[in-house]
Amino acid sequence: MSITIACCQVELEVGSAEHNRQACLESVERAARDGAEVIVLPELANSGYVFSERAEVRALAEPLDGPTVTALAALAAHHRIVVVSGLCEADAAAQMPRNSAVVIDEGGLRAVYRKAHLWGREPEFFLPGDQPPAVLDTRFGRIATMVCYDLEFPEWVRTAALEGARLLCVPTNWPAESRPTGERSMEVVRAQAAASVNRMFIACSDRARTERGLVWVNGTVIVGPDGYPLVGPVYDDRTVTITARVALEQAEDKAIGPHNDVFADRRSELYRNLTC
Amino acid sequence: MSITIACCQVELEVGSAEHNRQACLESVERAARDGAEVIVLPELANSGYVFSERAEVRALAEPLDGPTVTALAALAAHHRIVVVSGLCEADAAAQMPRNSAVVIDEGGLRAVYRKAHLWGREPEFFLPGDQPPAVLDTRFGRIATMVCYDLEFPEWVRTAALEGARLLCVPTNWPAESRPTGERSMEVVRAQAAASVNRMFIACSDRARTERGLVWVNGTVIVGPDGYPLVGPVYDDRTVTITARVALEQAEDKAIGPHNDVFADRRSELYRNLTC
Repeated sequence: MSITIACCQVELEVGSAEHNRQACLESVERAARDGAEVIVLPELANSGYVFSERAEVRALAEPLDGPTVTALAALAAHHRIVVVSGLCEADAAAQMPRNSAVVIDEGGLRAVYRKAHLWGREPEFFLPGDQPPAVLDTRFGRIATMVCYDLEFPEWVRTAALEGARLLCVPTNWPAESRPTGERSMEVVRAQAAASVNRMFIACSDRARTERGLVWVNGTVIVGPDGYPLVGPVYDDRTVTITARVALEQAEDKAIGPHNDVFADRRSELYRNLTC
Repeated sequence: MSITIACCQVELEVGSAEHNRQACLESVERAARDGAEVIVLPELANSGYVFSERAEVRALAEPLDGPTVTALAALAAHHRIVVVSGLCEADAAAQMPRNSAVVIDEGGLRAVYRKAHLWGREPEFFLPGDQPPAVLDTRFGRIATMVCYDLEFPEWVRTAALEGARLLCVPTNWPAESRPTGERSMEVVRAQAAASVNRMFIACSDRARTERGLVWVNGTVIVGPDGYPLVGPVYDDRTVTITARVALEQAEDKAIGPHNDVFADRRSELYRNLTC
């Protein structure tokens, strides 16, 4: 079965909840009309990223039945699509907000994942998750989600892959760092390697619009199981959606040539020092 | 302390033990004279790679006190350097040869590592190792070694990094696969990501000379802890040595910015599904 994946890079603005929601809904609506079936939005798509203080985050955090998830669920139901979005989440069971990713399909909210590896000042603002990446079956195949810096931990990507994910959806807010001329951003390189060693698709939606001085990679990209980008990276600081039509079942095949298999070849009995 | 790393890409020829040894010794000698202090040779540097049958491998396998290690040890002693080389090893304690990497310094053989993740038809010819990557202190700093396909298992690279390796030396024989125009070989991309997520140097020595129809990546490369190549990849099917002068202690610093640390940020208590 071939499906169309869309990654929406969106111009967000910290603190402008209504603007962010509308911008995300418009991107999703347009992508769905153009035939996308799995649509990925950036990290913290409802709030923006560069918070000045805790109170700002708390004011922007929404519960799982709040306006952003509700509106995305309506779109998902209408178009019979899957949406994966970053969410600044008000978690009633926790003392602090969460940097979450939600998976929504025609039946509503299917999964919530809380970012486990926090970046920068995020520990001031968010409680880290302590559950593995969300991995679930959808009508378009088995997908997983994690958030931004999570992707830099190969252990975490492997966890999702071993749970059978064919497509890993990664809402991100990638801060730009300088890089040598002609080099691809290391964020994208890591996504490529992660796809390649796990033979799965990875779809990363970065955000746009410089925020309080922070510049983004704008590295929205969809990578195939061979590790090469199918489309992107965008590298342009604007709202844009990229799409790739893929046969997701390719990611079930972990073989490389007649003799090797990236899962079967693991020597997991020797990996003991990775856990504690 | 700054040191010079050299990766020698060498034209090898399966079955021509004397040719291979001389070619490797010449490359090491030249690199040492030019000031290299840690010198990496390709995988199976004494034997070549594309074996037709078991008897051919057995005939080429050498013990750890055989002519190749002995000659490299003499060079290492003379120049007071560290040499890491792939070796088709006759292991008296095993029923089959090993696809090994040896670490040699001025005091002689310091470590032998047996490739744990075997590629292609290698299981017909070699017994896989069951020990972690070799990690040891040298006068130039703490280095590690693993072989070729091992590098595609992030668990294995992490194992070496967590043991304190500043530089990972990887003898390889990378078979070339087709890739999209303008794309870097995925073998190199994976090395970049591995260096980046572990903030360590990685030096990969590929081989040259098409062998029995098998074409190589010729991807010899030295990557810095930020994941960007310091020199290479070569992409030219010939004997050539690349060098980089580096401050190896940079790899002790696992910080990214003021808030993050790629080791301290690991959530190892959550990585339990990686082992068995």
